[in-house]
Amino acid sequence: MKKTNIYEANGFDAKSMKRLLVHDSPYFKVLNFNFKAGQQLPVHSHDIEGEVSLVVLEGEGEFLGKDGSSMPAKAGDVLICPISDPHGLKAGSDLRLLVTIAPPI
Amino acid sequence: MKKTNIYEANGFDAKSMKRLLVHDSPYFKVLNFNFKAGQQLPVHSHDIEGEVSLVVLEGEGEFLGKDGSSMPAKAGDVLICPISDPHGLKAGSDLRLLVTIAPPI
Repeated sequence: MKKTNIYEANGFDAKSMKRLLVHDSPYFKVLNFNFKAGQQLPVHSHDIEGEVSLVVLEGEGEFLGKDGSSMPAKAGDVLICPISDPHGLKAGSDLRLLVTIAPPI
Repeated sequence: MKKTNIYEANGFDAKSMKRLLVHDSPYFKVLNFNFKAGQQLPVHSHDIEGEVSLVVLEGEGEFLGKDGSSMPAKAGDVLICPISDPHGLKAGSDLRLLVTIAPPI
């Protein structure tokens, strides 16, 4: 068993989003990204098999998708998509995001 | 892309913990369990390959392990273990838990 408190282990940075690798194994990769208001994870995709979940732990903003599309994002939202689909996030407030990728990349 | 707000989609039940299947695919299974104070996910394990993550979104309590062991659990905690390791949770307050299992069972 491995326990990490991501609220204590990862903070915020005025210059850019802060990334914490929580776990990496043959089964999944778990990452935490913290954004100050206005910061973003640019839209990207990977041409491989698998899925990614994006969980908003705190804050609000927008999930970003292909062709400039977006959807509101807020605490409690769980977004799931193929890793090969364009995805990203823009923070409207300070925002904590937990990302799980399976299988890991 | 599939978005679920688990704070809106799943509530609490005084009789027993409330379970919401958020996602099931060949890559992972995502579940949300909500506990009223005192409710628990009994210690259990599965004799298969894979890992499980337990993320506390709100509340506090105890992660349960083998031989009656326990560890404090609070918001922001990410616990990761093999599915074959005994694991469970007991809520000390109303508590929201997000569980990811890869590969799915």
